[in-house]
Amino acid sequence: MTPWGALLDYTARQDVDGLTAYARSLGPGESARALAHLDAEERQRVLEALGAEETADLLEMLTRAQAVEVVEQLTAIYAANVLHELPTHTEADIVRDLDDDDAAAVLAELPPEEAAEVRALSTWADDTAGGLMVVQYVSVRATQTVSEIVDHLRTQADEYRDYQVQYVYVVDDEGLLTGVLRLRDLLLARPRVTAQEVMIPDPISVEAATDLDGLQELFDGASYFGLPVTDRGRMVGVVRRATVEEAVGEEAHRDHLKHAGIVGGEELRSMPTLTRSRRRLQWLSINIVLNMIAASIIAIYQDTLTSVIALAVFLPIISDMSGCSGNQAVAVSMRELSIGVARPQDVLHVWLKELSVGVINGLALGTMLGGVAWMWKGNPWLGVVAGVALAVNTVLAVSIGGTVPLLLKHFGVDPALASGPVLTTITDLCGFLLVLGLATQMLPLLV
Amino acid sequence: MTPWGALLDYTARQDVDGLTAYARSLGPGESARALAHLDAEERQRVLEALGAEETADLLEMLTRAQAVEVVEQLTAIYAANVLHELPTHTEADIVRDLDDDDAAAVLAELPPEEAAEVRALSTWADDTAGGLMVVQYVSVRATQTVSEIVDHLRTQADEYRDYQVQYVYVVDDEGLLTGVLRLRDLLLARPRVTAQEVMIPDPISVEAATDLDGLQELFDGASYFGLPVTDRGRMVGVVRRATVEEAVGEEAHRDHLKHAGIVGGEELRSMPTLTRSRRRLQWLSINIVLNMIAASIIAIYQDTLTSVIALAVFLPIISDMSGCSGNQAVAVSMRELSIGVARPQDVLHVWLKELSVGVINGLALGTMLGGVAWMWKGNPWLGVVAGVALAVNTVLAVSIGGTVPLLLKHFGVDPALASGPVLTTITDLCGFLLVLGLATQMLPLLV
Repeated sequence: MTPWGALLDYTARQDVDGLTAYARSLGPGESARALAHLDAEERQRVLEALGAEETADLLEMLTRAQAVEVVEQLTAIYAANVLHELPTHTEADIVRDLDDDDAAAVLAELPPEEAAEVRALSTWADDTAGGLMVVQYVSVRATQTVSEIVDHLRTQADEYRDYQVQYVYVVDDEGLLTGVLRLRDLLLARPRVTAQEVMIPDPISVEAATDLDGLQELFDGASYFGLPVTDRGRMVGVVRRATVEEAVGEEAHRDHLKHAGIVGGEELRSMPTLTRSRRRLQWLSINIVLNMIAASIIAIYQDTLTSVIALAVFLPIISDMSGCSGNQAVAVSMRELSIGVARPQDVLHVWLKELSVGVINGLALGTMLGGVAWMWKGNPWLGVVAGVALAVNTVLAVSIGGTVPLLLKHFGVDPALASGPVLTTITDLCGFLLVLGLATQMLPLLV
Repeated sequence: MTPWGALLDYTARQDVDGLTAYARSLGPGESARALAHLDAEERQRVLEALGAEETADLLEMLTRAQAVEVVEQLTAIYAANVLHELPTHTEADIVRDLDDDDAAAVLAELPPEEAAEVRALSTWADDTAGGLMVVQYVSVRATQTVSEIVDHLRTQADEYRDYQVQYVYVVDDEGLLTGVLRLRDLLLARPRVTAQEVMIPDPISVEAATDLDGLQELFDGASYFGLPVTDRGRMVGVVRRATVEEAVGEEAHRDHLKHAGIVGGEELRSMPTLTRSRRRLQWLSINIVLNMIAASIIAIYQDTLTSVIALAVFLPIISDMSGCSGNQAVAVSMRELSIGVARPQDVLHVWLKELSVGVINGLALGTMLGGVAWMWKGNPWLGVVAGVALAVNTVLAVSIGGTVPLLLKHFGVDPALASGPVLTTITDLCGFLLVLGLATQMLPLLV
């Protein structure tokens, strides 16, 4: 039986223990897959039978997009019960991504205090320190001794076990952060000394509004497990390395999806068909217009094409191959941008580096295509037209592919979104112009 | 002055303190960028002036591909000095990726014991638990008391500070792993109890040969900071969550680069031109052959094309648009494969989900293109040919795009590498066949 079949089966037999045991036995991928195969009504049934706590555990294994999708399909009251079982920052993450109506309905069902906290957290933008932080952490005063702090940890052990404590934060009466204690320093210190003496004073902290790039740079630079988050100096939470790395990874995935034409957030096939179709069409309908503009060059040169119909074979090849060459350069530029090796002001350096590769590859590909064209029709000039057009257009494609992501970034346009269409429209236009323009000039040699 | 200019300037003035301070002031991205702008000889000069320890710190900020590139360009003796300053697993990572000759030369310059350890570590395949683990960890016996262990940690504090200790491992006389102690449990436990009583017995461990998928599943399932690595039961190291997540992220990046035609590992523009050109050409030369095969359909239908030359305008549009639609489906499938929502056996489910989107989008795009074709030439039948061909080919493209990654995975072919070429070759072939085949059938209505 399939995992989703098994879940439905346990639910139908009202075997809650069996259902719970089975759900727990599924790995994160299997859970995601099983939920993806259930429709909205089946999910509600299975998850209600499973209970809020187990459902919350399940949600934590899913990607954000899928978790949001699952919560949206639950009744508001059950969704609130489930969210209540999650860490506050995860609750806020999900509430932030719900439709406004759904969010309001769920918040209305939460205890007022919790709803206020979630609402406050969800005001920090997604992918900022405030949006990614957890609000559970251990804080002490600078005058406490190591043994007092250890005793405090020991007596509060039950509460703190869930906090994934790695650091203890030292704050003053106003809640201002004055120092950090690492757990191992507490272990290694003599019991009688005060926090003041062993703490790292003036610790590095991040403002709640710090964005993902800023956080990534901080965590890349040193091996913090987590960093305290402050709002005008007052400590408000802790942002963990794992959370930041996850957010960076998710951002990279969204960029790659965008580059492939999946815009408006991640698409899962369990989402409604019309939503998926509409989001894909937004991208495709821009592309078809750009395509028609580029292809209109062909319409202008109809007479040349009628005289040398063999040229029609080379138009799609040159369009496709230039796209391939250009996309290789785009991929390298996007990667170099993301790891910091390239910046928008390096556009000349990048162009020169692409130029040399473009010339070599253009010559190689142009020779191949030109040779085939010559052999096919026995006319060397047809080979010259096809080969020169592809060679020149390859140089152009890598130049555009390498530099356009940097230029788009410079002008504040998302390179993941716009690099592809800009690249292919220009290379198509130029490719068609090169083949047909050259052929028109050399028409007597070709017919 | 540019950062690379500044580095060269300090080096020329033999101002080591200034150079060191400046190098330390650079963020990870800036360091990567500065090194990318220096040629091999300049790098050697700057990094030798900087000294082995600072160079090692710099290397740790780079991506693996760039670090390997930098080390390859150093003299063997200086490279060995630099590697010596790195954690052993990082040393092994770099040595594993060096050319065999370079690796042998560097190992010959390392102290024999260290060389043996690096060699042993680098025998574990990259991206396995053995390849990713660190070999520095703290181990104790089950009979030791909490206070003895804490005292031990305290006296060895200097050595252990670098270990990023989060767990203490309990091993028996044969080195077999019998339990794990979390630091916070040591803090929270009464001093007189033994490790036996507070340890987590039969802890989860991974075999050294476990691959990245297996590791990812383990770490996804629970919030371990690290897991002990065993070789036939004996503990040999610790693999950390951060290392695994970094490796997963790098793998995703390599997949996206491969999908865009950058094969054979990451490309950086600071690599030699011929290497970059050759690697890109491997991919392009396969693509141009596939392109020619698809375009040969056009050659077969030359007569139809000569009669209705307007069709030549639609061939590249249909080729491009089908590629776009298909690639959206590929992107969603690759993402669903990586997060576990889709598996190879879900191919029918995926196909049905794509079919509905394909029909809607095919109708929308076909109507647009058909309408434009009709208006352009005033012939409704030209609109029918272009529109029907694009509509049918869109359905085909999303069907192929959605299912091919799953099928390739099932047959053990890397979907990141092969999905693109398979998709575009089939959709080009079918697209050209549809336009020209339909037109041939309807020729009397078109001329």
